[in-house]
Amino acid sequence: MSITFSPIGLVRTPFTDLSGMPIQPSGARDVVGTLVLDPQYEQGLKDLDGFSHLILIYHFHRSSGFQLMVEPFLDTVPRGMFATRAPRRPNPIGLSIVRLLKVSHNEVTVKGIDVLDGTPLLDIKPWIPAFDVQGEVRVGWMEKKQEQALSMKSDGRFVGDDEVE
Amino acid sequence: MSITFSPIGLVRTPFTDLSGMPIQPSGARDVVGTLVLDPQYEQGLKDLDGFSHLILIYHFHRSSGFQLMVEPFLDTVPRGMFATRAPRRPNPIGLSIVRLLKVSHNEVTVKGIDVLDGTPLLDIKPWIPAFDVQGEVRVGWMEKKQEQALSMKSDGRFVGDDEVE
Repeated sequence: MSITFSPIGLVRTPFTDLSGMPIQPSGARDVVGTLVLDPQYEQGLKDLDGFSHLILIYHFHRSSGFQLMVEPFLDTVPRGMFATRAPRRPNPIGLSIVRLLKVSHNEVTVKGIDVLDGTPLLDIKPWIPAFDVQGEVRVGWMEKKQEQALSMKSDGRFVGDDEVE
Repeated sequence: MSITFSPIGLVRTPFTDLSGMPIQPSGARDVVGTLVLDPQYEQGLKDLDGFSHLILIYHFHRSSGFQLMVEPFLDTVPRGMFATRAPRRPNPIGLSIVRLLKVSHNEVTVKGIDVLDGTPLLDIKPWIPAFDVQGEVRVGWMEKKQEQALSMKSDGRFVGDDEVE
């Protein structure tokens, strides 16, 4: 069974190369980018400007294949792939929560964007904490490591030629 | 340009009908469901059990078509579709953040699940607040309405026969 999506637009960012990229929005706090939607979707952006944060869902278009155990940027121990945010996944879908700066026609300016320039955008959703997170949060193997994501950069390990079928 | 994904498994929940379903995880706080992954992905679930919350990305498989302006459950005013969480979207991708109860082989038991039984699961990611949300949050048109989501149920308005091309 397969499911087919089409990009609603592209994400423009200063990052043209995987190496040296921030690995999460928290490490790209001041990086500004633009979501350039297909003009047919412009009306769908109405009311978006009331929200401070957007959930972006996009295609890790430079990622291919996956491994079930991966050594994430923030650890030296291989971890189960679903317990990481590594881009090489069975379905290479990325998620970033970014801050909204401005909506203008079919373009949305955002801050804290950690994706490659030209990334195909699949969806935009408003971030609504009351919907999304209930109760106390624990972060497993990340517990002592999450702050490191502020400064760590990508090293290209997930570019992935060794595709796993 | 099209992007093709395949489900990594299915979500089993008590909800076999759209009508009467909670509309967000916050309204399904005590609802338990199971992510049944294809057995080939079992190893990828290692280390997941340290996390309290999971981001589920799935296919709104019963949703078809979309409209750029929608009247959401929580409002009487049509809103831009990207400023809502309505399932009828250009790419019908759903996102829920749920609580993890247990990982056993290729099955993950979760709580606070608000999706239809049989929903095709596309990805599981750990919820890591330090990555995901920076700064103060505003929720636009939802400001005075988000608490209502705790009790509101779906009425099937998004089942969607009137497909928009």
